[in-house]
Amino acid sequence: VSTSRLETFADGVFAIAATLLVLDVHAGPPLSDTLLRIWPSYVAYAVSFATIGIIWMNHHYVFSLIARVDRTFLLINVGFLMCVGFIPFPTGLVATHFRGPGLPPAALTYGATLIVTALLFNLLWFYAARRRRLLRPDADLRAVSGVSRSYAIGPVVYAVATVTAFADATAAVILFALITCFYVVESSVFGRSRARPEDQPASE
Amino acid sequence: VSTSRLETFADGVFAIAATLLVLDVHAGPPLSDTLLRIWPSYVAYAVSFATIGIIWMNHHYVFSLIARVDRTFLLINVGFLMCVGFIPFPTGLVATHFRGPGLPPAALTYGATLIVTALLFNLLWFYAARRRRLLRPDADLRAVSGVSRSYAIGPVVYAVATVTAFADATAAVILFALITCFYVVESSVFGRSRARPEDQPASE
Amino acid sequence: VSTSRLETFADGVFAIAATLLVLDVHAGPPLSDTLLRIWPSYVAYAVSFATIGIIWMNHHYVFSLIARVDRTFLLINVGFLMCVGFIPFPTGLVATHFRGPGLPPAALTYGATLIVTALLFNLLWFYAARRRRLLRPDADLRAVSGVSRSYAIGPVVYAVATVTAFADATAAVILFALITCFYVVESSVFGRSRARPEDQPASE
Amino acid sequence: VSTSRLETFADGVFAIAATLLVLDVHAGPPLSDTLLRIWPSYVAYAVSFATIGIIWMNHHYVFSLIARVDRTFLLINVGFLMCVGFIPFPTGLVATHFRGPGLPPAALTYGATLIVTALLFNLLWFYAARRRRLLRPDADLRAVSGVSRSYAIGPVVYAVATVTAFADATAAVILFALITCFYVVESSVFGRSRARPEDQPASE
Repeated sequence: VSTSRLETFADGVFAIAATLLVLDVHAGPPLSDTLLRIWPSYVAYAVSFATIGIIWMNHHYVFSLIARVDRTFLLINVGFLMCVGFIPFPTGLVATHFRGPGLPPAALTYGATLIVTALLFNLLWFYAARRRRLLRPDADLRAVSGVSRSYAIGPVVYAVATVTAFADATAAVILFALITCFYVVESSVFGRSRARPEDQPASE
Repeated sequence: VSTSRLETFADGVFAIAATLLVLDVHAGPPLSDTLLRIWPSYVAYAVSFATIGIIWMNHHYVFSLIARVDRTFLLINVGFLMCVGFIPFPTGLVATHFRGPGLPPAALTYGATLIVTALLFNLLWFYAARRRRLLRPDADLRAVSGVSRSYAIGPVVYAVATVTAFADATAAVILFALITCFYVVESSVFGRSRARPEDQPASE
Repeated sequence: VSTSRLETFADGVFAIAATLLVLDVHAGPPLSDTLLRIWPSYVAYAVSFATIGIIWMNHHYVFSLIARVDRTFLLINVGFLMCVGFIPFPTGLVATHFRGPGLPPAALTYGATLIVTALLFNLLWFYAARRRRLLRPDADLRAVSGVSRSYAIGPVVYAVATVTAFADATAAVILFALITCFYVVESSVFGRSRARPEDQPASE
Repeated sequence: VSTSRLETFADGVFAIAATLLVLDVHAGPPLSDTLLRIWPSYVAYAVSFATIGIIWMNHHYVFSLIARVDRTFLLINVGFLMCVGFIPFPTGLVATHFRGPGLPPAALTYGATLIVTALLFNLLWFYAARRRRLLRPDADLRAVSGVSRSYAIGPVVYAVATVTAFADATAAVILFALITCFYVVESSVFGRSRARPEDQPASE
């Protein structure tokens, strides 16, 4: 029962962080020009919303494998949500400074935020999965090690894209968008067979 | 059980997108003048809040017909919520530029957002309903095809109103408001008989 | 089960409207002066947060008497939440213009918002309670008529305070604060005996 | 069942207050300089997010010991949430004025907010625990008195840090951060044995 509150709080942070992204989309007059010129804001909104959505899907999947929580797990989760709630800040930076001299530091901030988010998500998972500490007794061994491998790659992928920003910030930003696209495709296409046992009865 | 988290996240986005609309209502001094002059802001708030409320009611209805979810459905749902979360931006544009030269692009942005929202809602529904992929075994065949027909009209209606903006942006904005009024009346009056089997026992 | 989504959406709007109130509390330098001078902002925050909290408590109580919902009820509820979500706007006006010439229109806007909110809450209740349309079969007759009488007074009380603003806006604002204080005291002291049968087992 | 709505509303306020903190993190050009110079904003975000997270964890723990609620408890809870929802304001003050003459009043405002929050949390707890008014019959006597002792210290600790601000505001702010660090460590390390009986079965 209690985990449901954890999920309510987490889903609240996910939903708010995603929806606050729209506050960074601004357009002053003359609208006919501005609305086209600010396309980086739209892309940044879409990429960060999709990123938060995919993190939410993974968080959701981890909780389907977990049987119980302890205070350390709750704390790691608060730290993880702290990162998710921070995503609107670097997203706004990248959108605002996309065509200016501020793009390299903006891209580094975005990358650093996502590296730390991915690291904390791994910490959350490995704390729960190590020696099956918090896992359900019936959690499938192969599903668990598949998740471990798949999540461990996250920080590496974001680190590579972030390092690219030192050479070419625009390339780094494109990489960030591509990573999100990859995860979208991966979880819908490749993830389909993996998802089979995950298909769940609806609540009503 | 798991679908409840999907609904918590979705309801969070709906509630936040609707409540953020109030941040676009501003009034500077002298208040006695300004508070009357900004009536388009009040109307925009009411129309967009009602639109989000009706989309929420339909989302809610779709979930009452669904038995299970898969990862592709989750992803489509994230894309759909991305559109819902974006609605405050074009709403603010229309309210701010209602009497200025920016109304045509503002109305086009509003219309485009609602067309894409309606398209993604259709994608969500047809993905679930096609060959009854995710539907409940006991979902009534006539209810299902009624929903299919009713939702398919949405993007068309918004496309007509949006195209009108090229000729007369004010007319387009009035059409957007009328569409919402129609849906409000439709779901309370005409929808009443349809709603009969939908009447649900309260949670307590 | 489905009503739980209605309540999730409603609780989301209540929580967001209440928490957004803090965005209207601003203080520029020199802080040592400003932080004292903006006391009307603190009072406005507290009064509106408490008002939203009490509306939430009443909404919660109504739902404990309701057995089922229909589409018309859902729509009235969306309209009611539209008013709740609007409360941060007039609250900000009153706080900002408390010592200026803008107080009368600000107080009128605040009062009008709360009158309409109270009217829609009555509409919500009487739609559900008329001929016991949506009530639980076991809803106590005396509780129901007690609620009807108590809620019907709300719009009248706010109308009196609002009309006062034409003569003396400061007095009207003090009345708004006193009304909230009255409801706080009423629901904790007088409401205690009434609450007896309402004492509910916790969810865990 | 009804308590679940209380928790939804509370979790909503917690999640929104925590996520709104990011709106106080701003960076104007030149980014490469600003992003480093605004480190107090990052620390303030982290400290306040962690503080809200720990308050949430304690709120969650209290509710696991409670069997039922009454209207007075609901009201105290609204007052308590009013304080939680206010935390973003003094957090923004401290972050913005960290290196300016405004730090003393900012630190006092932050401290005062947390003292009042801690006092209301104690009121919430002692109202529920006094003569075991709202406690579960099976709530462990030692757990209850452990909680009482631990929570009673909160306002004292924050009062000491706040009084420090009269002498040295920077020291006070460092104390605020250390208090949060202490609670983080305390609840993960020392709290581990205490948490044993609290380990709960997940909701799915």
